[in-house]
Amino acid sequence: MSHIARLFVESPLRPEQPVDLGADQSRYLTRVMRLQPGSKVRAFNGQDGEWECELQGTPKSAVLNPLRQTRVQGTGTDLTLLFAPIKKARTDFIIEKATELGVSAIHPVLTEYTQTSRVRVDRFRSLAIEAAEQTERMDVPEIFEAVPLAKALSVWTDQRPLIYCDESAEAAPLAVHTSSLAQKPTSILIGPEGGFSPRERQMLRALDFVIPITLGPRILRAETAVVSALTLWQSLLGDWHNSPYLPVSE
Amino acid sequence: MSHIARLFVESPLRPEQPVDLGADQSRYLTRVMRLQPGSKVRAFNGQDGEWECELQGTPKSAVLNPLRQTRVQGTGTDLTLLFAPIKKARTDFIIEKATELGVSAIHPVLTEYTQTSRVRVDRFRSLAIEAAEQTERMDVPEIFEAVPLAKALSVWTDQRPLIYCDESAEAAPLAVHTSSLAQKPTSILIGPEGGFSPRERQMLRALDFVIPITLGPRILRAETAVVSALTLWQSLLGDWHNSPYLPVSE
Repeated sequence: MSHIARLFVESPLRPEQPVDLGADQSRYLTRVMRLQPGSKVRAFNGQDGEWECELQGTPKSAVLNPLRQTRVQGTGTDLTLLFAPIKKARTDFIIEKATELGVSAIHPVLTEYTQTSRVRVDRFRSLAIEAAEQTERMDVPEIFEAVPLAKALSVWTDQRPLIYCDESAEAAPLAVHTSSLAQKPTSILIGPEGGFSPRERQMLRALDFVIPITLGPRILRAETAVVSALTLWQSLLGDWHNSPYLPVSE
Repeated sequence: MSHIARLFVESPLRPEQPVDLGADQSRYLTRVMRLQPGSKVRAFNGQDGEWECELQGTPKSAVLNPLRQTRVQGTGTDLTLLFAPIKKARTDFIIEKATELGVSAIHPVLTEYTQTSRVRVDRFRSLAIEAAEQTERMDVPEIFEAVPLAKALSVWTDQRPLIYCDESAEAAPLAVHTSSLAQKPTSILIGPEGGFSPRERQMLRALDFVIPITLGPRILRAETAVVSALTLWQSLLGDWHNSPYLPVSE
């Protein structure tokens, strides 16, 4: 069983309205995937659903011609992630996993124990696009510039609960909060290696919209905590009861 | 706040019965951690609980002298993971994450779509030890040699449910099976990139002890599926209601 290649594009997707691909995507389809003109490719842009397209153009300047819509856009989940950047490979992993697990936006936040201040939004966006293509998502999470945690919290809307995973103190499991969180746009905050400082923990716990939860008795690395917290939210409050998005096969 | 270094050792841990460390652990404590003789180090061996020890000996041949037990051993969870090896970095990640999420044993299994047959049990064991030290576990998961999936299933004990995560078909969420799985030793099976072959899926679904579950509508990479499935099991059936294992601080 081979799957039809799937690409995120920036252009509108409308019947017989060709989409010019850039050099990178052209090379990917013709050199890496070794597709010939006339091959089928799936495309999505976060707006117009998913389209089956025909590959046209040249190896250096490929074109997708939308033939028919294969999936409608639907409405995404309003679940956003705030995370403190860590080492490069593990941060990349967080971007990829948060995309697979369906977040709508990713906000890097700088905390007292954050070791790195190099946050490359363009790199994060490339990683998110690749993960969205692979995971059968219909959109790509929005990636924001890094801001200090205190600043992010100072402009928070009270109506939006912020789930805060703190391994250094007692807290209830997420399941306890299911009914109060149902149907609400929500955010999840994960700290860096070493967690939050005592001052940050005090600040967080004093805020009305912050909901501390536990992720069990062991100390999880930051990227594990991201996957675990998003998994719990999606299974309890998200779209995990929906049918799988099966890729179209050739 | 600095945490006391934590090491897994193979020797018994008894009061004032010194433990000779090998060259690697000696170098780690004296060169990497820059600890001086007289420093405190925590040690565990999977049998005797966790001990606060005093560092003695020389930089090339360090010795730990157990002073007092800081945690009792307790009984572990009988939850094992069967996974199909994938690319190196992502397989390493599976070993690390499965250890963080508290599995008692890890069994690499070779499936029809498994791309790699190089399975380095010694490397997996090093990764598991490092993760166990970091995650405040009291033991290290046992790592087994790789076997073909069909062989692993042919010697299965019927009493042990095998949770099978298949993204290519309809299945119920794990929560549906909570009461039938409670208190039972359990295993979780995660396939390689590309999932299971139609023949494997048929074989799995025909077995009485196999419980198919869903991990939501998006296609998850194998290592994401490992973390998600173990998270769900631990939160529903495992030890995530226990208090956190707080590391002892200096």
